[in-house]
Amino acid sequence: MSHDKLSQTPAWLALQAHHAEIAEAKLRDLFEQDPERFARFSIEADGLLLDFSKNRVTAETMALLHALAAQADVAGWRGRLFAGERINVTEDRAVLHVALRAPAAASIAVDGEDVIPKVSTALERMRSFSESFHRGDRRGATGLPITDVVNIGIGGSDLGPLMVTEALRHQARPSPRVRFVSNVDPAHLNRALEGLTPASTLFIVVSKSFTTQETRLNAEAARRWLRAGLPNDQASAEHIVAVTANGARARDFGVSACFDMWDWVGGRFSLWSTVGLPIALALGFEAFEELLAGARAMDEHFLTAPHEANQPLTLALLGLWYSDFFGAQSHAVVPYSQALHRLPAYLQQAEMESNGKAVDRDGRPVPVPTSPILWGEPGTNAQHAVFQLLHQGTPLVPVDFIAVARGEPGDETRDDTREDALLANALAQSAALMRGKSAAEAQAELEAAGLDEAAVAKLLPHKVFPGNRPSTTILLDALTPRRLGQLIALYEHKIFCQGVLWNLNSFDQWGVELGKQLAAEIQPDLASGPRESRHDASTEGLLARIKDYREGR
Amino acid sequence: MSHDKLSQTPAWLALQAHHAEIAEAKLRDLFEQDPERFARFSIEADGLLLDFSKNRVTAETMALLHALAAQADVAGWRGRLFAGERINVTEDRAVLHVALRAPAAASIAVDGEDVIPKVSTALERMRSFSESFHRGDRRGATGLPITDVVNIGIGGSDLGPLMVTEALRHQARPSPRVRFVSNVDPAHLNRALEGLTPASTLFIVVSKSFTTQETRLNAEAARRWLRAGLPNDQASAEHIVAVTANGARARDFGVSACFDMWDWVGGRFSLWSTVGLPIALALGFEAFEELLAGARAMDEHFLTAPHEANQPLTLALLGLWYSDFFGAQSHAVVPYSQALHRLPAYLQQAEMESNGKAVDRDGRPVPVPTSPILWGEPGTNAQHAVFQLLHQGTPLVPVDFIAVARGEPGDETRDDTREDALLANALAQSAALMRGKSAAEAQAELEAAGLDEAAVAKLLPHKVFPGNRPSTTILLDALTPRRLGQLIALYEHKIFCQGVLWNLNSFDQWGVELGKQLAAEIQPDLASGPRESRHDASTEGLLARIKDYREGR
Repeated sequence: MSHDKLSQTPAWLALQAHHAEIAEAKLRDLFEQDPERFARFSIEADGLLLDFSKNRVTAETMALLHALAAQADVAGWRGRLFAGERINVTEDRAVLHVALRAPAAASIAVDGEDVIPKVSTALERMRSFSESFHRGDRRGATGLPITDVVNIGIGGSDLGPLMVTEALRHQARPSPRVRFVSNVDPAHLNRALEGLTPASTLFIVVSKSFTTQETRLNAEAARRWLRAGLPNDQASAEHIVAVTANGARARDFGVSACFDMWDWVGGRFSLWSTVGLPIALALGFEAFEELLAGARAMDEHFLTAPHEANQPLTLALLGLWYSDFFGAQSHAVVPYSQALHRLPAYLQQAEMESNGKAVDRDGRPVPVPTSPILWGEPGTNAQHAVFQLLHQGTPLVPVDFIAVARGEPGDETRDDTREDALLANALAQSAALMRGKSAAEAQAELEAAGLDEAAVAKLLPHKVFPGNRPSTTILLDALTPRRLGQLIALYEHKIFCQGVLWNLNSFDQWGVELGKQLAAEIQPDLASGPRESRHDASTEGLLARIKDYREGR
Repeated sequence: MSHDKLSQTPAWLALQAHHAEIAEAKLRDLFEQDPERFARFSIEADGLLLDFSKNRVTAETMALLHALAAQADVAGWRGRLFAGERINVTEDRAVLHVALRAPAAASIAVDGEDVIPKVSTALERMRSFSESFHRGDRRGATGLPITDVVNIGIGGSDLGPLMVTEALRHQARPSPRVRFVSNVDPAHLNRALEGLTPASTLFIVVSKSFTTQETRLNAEAARRWLRAGLPNDQASAEHIVAVTANGARARDFGVSACFDMWDWVGGRFSLWSTVGLPIALALGFEAFEELLAGARAMDEHFLTAPHEANQPLTLALLGLWYSDFFGAQSHAVVPYSQALHRLPAYLQQAEMESNGKAVDRDGRPVPVPTSPILWGEPGTNAQHAVFQLLHQGTPLVPVDFIAVARGEPGDETRDDTREDALLANALAQSAALMRGKSAAEAQAELEAAGLDEAAVAKLLPHKVFPGNRPSTTILLDALTPRRLGQLIALYEHKIFCQGVLWNLNSFDQWGVELGKQLAAEIQPDLASGPRESRHDASTEGLLARIKDYREGR
């Protein structure tokens, strides 16, 4: 990466000039002009199709975007990532989520020590732990089988395992049932414990430092609940295991086993590690291995596919194109799959915490917009809630549609009609966003419906769709653990590429610190008793009102 | 409303000039300059405090925004809304969700007919229906008690009742248990039916037209499931009730009861109507009445509070201020309450479907940005996922914090620490966004931590928080049905005011039509068999790939 200001680099200036030329081009025309547009702008690899033909790009756009990637040395950074270099510069750490799914024969050194054997050992412990559940011989302190597992963790220690177990729930083992508690709000744990009994419940406490406030408080509450229902403290400790890099602290807390985390795995990239334990418990260790295999396949694709046929790099460049040249501040992900209902929340963390930064890795302001807001809800539901704005609202919102060709294995309510309806809607929405409906088309429809001239004139402006709204469709053959692994790794590498393009360190998160500091200052003042005013007037006013409300005034 | 172009009106031009003057003003300084800032910029009414002091406004800003509201005749439109005028002009309908919670003594005429008696009758039917469950004498066709209710509906027929029953689940009746199915993806119904048996399950099919594709297909699948487990078709029909404005079609389908909907209630404003039946079943009819009472209290506040002390109008003006003068394309809602985890999705529909439009009620283009993307996740979870971007990212995102002074009634894991941690974090995040951390402050901290000069220089740029990021805090004394009713109605009227300010019809949704039309054209082509190519190349390419994937190629 040159140390020129990004927006003054040759590749950037070329894109800027090009954008001015094609900003008004209509996708509908581009499709009419080029019958090969789909073939030209889609990339298939291993059961996953990336169709980016409905983006506002031409062959020239893609060439210029790839020139930007070359200027930013994406290939060089990619090599550094996979080699285990300390590319997380502000925290002086390697970034090795890819090591967690590397081929067993690989060798990746951190500080001269190969991490692959450690990974293999941790995987073997996960295997034997989860298999003990699925063989049915995992029992609690009083001898009852463990039927329920509650995962306590937040952020990266929650969203990944939660999203994956929800996505693949149709293939969950009958036992144990796995639930997730993240929020420090007592309502979250209370609700998760409904119907559970201490003697048959195991808690997994997940925190790299074992000091995360929410997780520590929830773990303490869980321990109180266990102690109230089990013979003694030792028995309670048998019902808690930890996933942590701070085994000493976990053992002080009282746990029956510790699964290792490492400082070279960031929370939002950690579901491939021991953080994935609830996945292995819910779905079986083989499913977890398939998930890893899928991610490994995407790693391989990312490493070896030519730039023009590289799925993660393509997604990254398209995202940058809309953020930086079209001014799009948000990006929607709409999975046409109820099973993927938490994928948007998962990706929201992955993208926004990684690249929601305005200072580059050299400490200089990034001169262009970085990560947009990623948001979304599953289709078809989203059509009945937010697509009004996507079609006719004022902000430009690029959309990723995620569709699955074959649905989950069936049951008695199964029929192809609903699956076809689901897929047809996914295809139709992206087509509608792309082509829109012209005033002439809308007028012809209204007249065909028999409306008189006055009614046509009144309704017409509301029936026009401007179109030219870009989207990408990611089509999976089926939602298997393997494909899900590919899909997640696709976005991980997209995020990595965008970080390189913007010259960000995607792997720190300093922006979470200030709020924590202030919370520690404010929390004591929620307790009653006199105190000196020392916050801003809003915080003081809110504290006073909270006190009044709590005292029923 | 004058027919001048909005952005050329006197009030708008005055705001524009004012924005240029204060855009650089720092909230931190404004707080220092004015010890009364919290008192000046907060509005309390009936257990709900709106603290808008951490917004980038001065007394002059608010005066100019209120002048805009006067110019747009918000008060006049508000009168028309409550009087039952046909303000949904494109569909020629009244907009009367406020009638659903009007005082029993009120009288609101639509086409000369008072609708209040109809509303009362519908409420009485809901009451007696839900009470039959809670008395325990609701039995299915085979004589078994009905223990489970599955609500089938999508969009407005799903999000409201789902959000409310989740929010108040701690006070749910032990029976019936209520689940929600919306997505046409067969996985949604499959998962909802886990553990249920036809003989003790009742379905509520909710669709104003009774033709909504997703709901019809899911209802048919539910009927197949019932028929497979019950003696005959007649028995199955006894396990289905409809909430619809099209009773004839529902009876053709086969239902044991119909609850009326009316064309003057829009889907996204309908939870107060018979669409709220699952709320009454889950929580009891008294809770539903309390919800209505809360909304009624907010209606009264909206109608009678002076503009400057009017909560919904204030929220609306602040939203417009950021969308139109600061260019914010999104707006976050972060409830510090796990119980409110679906509130952002609910409000997303309410706001984006209402005001995600670019053509005004007179058919002219709106010259300014309208509804932003509304998004959010519960706190504290969101802090571990998206707050990095809110604090240090490039887009400006105004945030609504929603906090609750007293948590849910307790249980054995209860302790005040977690409640205080939750609230302290809500207050701390809004304070942190507002004040930020200067380079001098960050440097002092790093030096105090003992870092050497080189380390300080390297880390410093990443430890600075620009601050000046606006937020509003909505504090409730407790999350009761009544307060939740107020809170929802607060946003409803905010949306109404914004529609008036932008001169939009907030009550139609033409933007959902085109996708439906195209889906109907595409769906037959998913079936196998030869066909002529007639879609765009992307749709054709995706159809071909889906076929290949389905056939295992």
